[in-house]
Amino acid sequence: MPKSYQIAVIGGDGTGPEVAAEGLKVLNAIAKDEGFSCNVTQLDWGGDRYLKSGEALPADALDQLRKFDSILLGAVGHPKVAPGILERKLLLDLRFGLDQYINLRPVKLFPGVETPLKGKGPDDIDFVVVRENTEDLYCGAGGFMHKGTPNEVATQTAIYTRKGCERAIRYAFEYTQRRNNPKGKKLTLVAKTNVLTTGHDLWWRAFQECAVDYPDVETDYNHVDACCMWIVKNPEFYDVIVTTNMFGDIITDLSGMIQGGMGVAAGGNINPEPGGVSMFEPMGGSAPKYTGQGVINPIATINAVSMLLDRIGETKAADRVMQAIMKVTGTKMKSQSAGKMGYSTSEVGDLVIDAL
Amino acid sequence: MPKSYQIAVIGGDGTGPEVAAEGLKVLNAIAKDEGFSCNVTQLDWGGDRYLKSGEALPADALDQLRKFDSILLGAVGHPKVAPGILERKLLLDLRFGLDQYINLRPVKLFPGVETPLKGKGPDDIDFVVVRENTEDLYCGAGGFMHKGTPNEVATQTAIYTRKGCERAIRYAFEYTQRRNNPKGKKLTLVAKTNVLTTGHDLWWRAFQECAVDYPDVETDYNHVDACCMWIVKNPEFYDVIVTTNMFGDIITDLSGMIQGGMGVAAGGNINPEPGGVSMFEPMGGSAPKYTGQGVINPIATINAVSMLLDRIGETKAADRVMQAIMKVTGTKMKSQSAGKMGYSTSEVGDLVIDAL
Ligand SMILES: CC(C)[C@H](C(=O)O)[C@@H](O)C(=O)O
Ligand SMILES: CC(C)[C@H](C(=O)O)[C@@H](O)C(=O)O
Repeated sequence: MPKSYQIAVIGGDGTGPEVAAEGLKVLNAIAKDEGFSCNVTQLDWGGDRYLKSGEALPADALDQLRKFDSILLGAVGHPKVAPGILERKLLLDLRFGLDQYINLRPVKLFPGVETPLKGKGPDDIDFVVVRENTEDLYCGAGGFMHKGTPNEVATQTAIYTRKGCERAIRYAFEYTQRRNNPKGKKLTLVAKTNVLTTGHDLWWRAFQECAVDYPDVETDYNHVDACCMWIVKNPEFYDVIVTTNMFGDIITDLSGMIQGGMGVAAGGNINPEPGGVSMFEPMGGSAPKYTGQGVINPIATINAVSMLLDRIGETKAADRVMQAIMKVTGTKMKSQSAGKMGYSTSEVGDLVIDAL
Repeated sequence: MPKSYQIAVIGGDGTGPEVAAEGLKVLNAIAKDEGFSCNVTQLDWGGDRYLKSGEALPADALDQLRKFDSILLGAVGHPKVAPGILERKLLLDLRFGLDQYINLRPVKLFPGVETPLKGKGPDDIDFVVVRENTEDLYCGAGGFMHKGTPNEVATQTAIYTRKGCERAIRYAFEYTQRRNNPKGKKLTLVAKTNVLTTGHDLWWRAFQECAVDYPDVETDYNHVDACCMWIVKNPEFYDVIVTTNMFGDIITDLSGMIQGGMGVAAGGNINPEPGGVSMFEPMGGSAPKYTGQGVINPIATINAVSMLLDRIGETKAADRVMQAIMKVTGTKMKSQSAGKMGYSTSEVGDLVIDAL
């Protein structure tokens, strides 16, 4: 019996369904080739559903998703829904509800892809960001006093737990070991210990204490402001970065830009526990203005598919998709920007399949 | 009677005193030329004093400083003092104690200075970041529960006041008006309203309400993660950015790097009120490894001196120093990196004076 995986696809809004379709095309092609199958369920969750029903997710969304082996997400963000609502009610509620406590962002400059940085090539831009994905300022704790008056005070509280930071830190150490960078295994903690003297003191102590268990991994520390400078100036300094949810949000996007931007960068929201359900997504938003024009770049989504394959254990398939992506970016596409690729969205999907 | 200004100089640690000396050299030269004088008081506050006395600042530090027209700071950070202590007890306590509620960072690529960005020149990298400088996560509110146990929880609270964000926002609007960018007057609020739904809701409302009073200024909004991407990809999008203390810390350093880094970037901690005392500093740290070698770049400190002159009302002198800096970076210096300038620290100071 060939292996079969249950895959949920949330196309979402704007160009999300278009890029998800290309991702699926590649997923099915590689499955066929490698002798496994993917049983795909499309879920219509997103802005349109929210506008009709008032809810971004059905009440049993988490129970539904727990039955799948993995999830592919297109994009959320609808021009008729106030900004922030779908992001929180769909994206964040899924991350938290499925306890996807790792946000993983491999930062790799593919051949042929333009980076905004001078003099940096694929050898220089090749690191991984491990972002804690369930705590920090993302917990939503906060409030107002004297709201709407000149005396208004607002608070926003970052909450961190030892368990929460330790599991992200251990994941990052183990990832660094597995990645086994020939230039040396190095894990850099990024935080702001000189200012966040309680929250990031916990991170600092947890990092030091965990490090003892991974003596083969060199450790380093950067303040978040310095890290953003080095990412732009010396990205080759980094092997793996581990950081908090809020700073990770910033660092992953900055890193995504230096690897070529929205068109190529992808990330995984990972629950690494046995039976945990993970969700993979391209970095770009729903780009509503391009909807239906066939000009959006599906490479980031196909990159997400490669991450998904790796996660479900189809590592050979994952690697073949990654190689095919690099062949297409390196030898075919003119640009990674929407409308300038030299091919339509679905032609790029076809090129990847041809290159498999 | 020629005008006379009282200037305090805190050389600080490492290479701080060396760069401060060059800044002072230029300050005295331009003063002589423009017919005013600077009465300089050197204050030995920093790591060495802390190691001897246990205090980074004397008890009456704020009272002492309130008598000055302005402050020039070299750098803080001493290899024998645990990281964070001097930054908080000196730098942050002065910012808060003197109510320097604006951190101003002009981001300008000087002629001849190398940016890490491809295809961007002095016309593209020319914007200003206005960072709120007294609130947010920098208030130090936070605590621990079950500290040191596997059940530990740590919190860190950002506190924002309407008064605090409004004064920064109004300063930024007025700055945008004065700057009067020929490409158009535009102020971009940078925050994370989709996640920080209380704290940044206050910022959002304050920004919208203030905007009404500045109808000639176009307004825009970016999430912090997107802003970091655009700074690297399209810095020419920006005219003036206004942001919170924590995000401002990140954005000013990232921006400092694209304008050429530690060697050139400077900032002001400004109390804009009548009688308010402001403090100007180069972006770089104390770089202890270069101490006493005469290789550190003083341009950033001389840039800080130009900002100081502007603040005390000597705008012509400020402008002449700025022009001289640009002549030296554009026609003399080989690089802005320590040890690679083609000149020693004091020779660079001399070159600026020659170019005045
Ligand atoms: C959409 C938003 C809530 C989200 C985040 O802040 O985590 C996004 O920026 C991301 O990084 O995936
Ligand atoms: C040294 C540190 C406390 C400080 C800050 O975080 O504000 C620095 O990074 C800066 O930007 O001036």
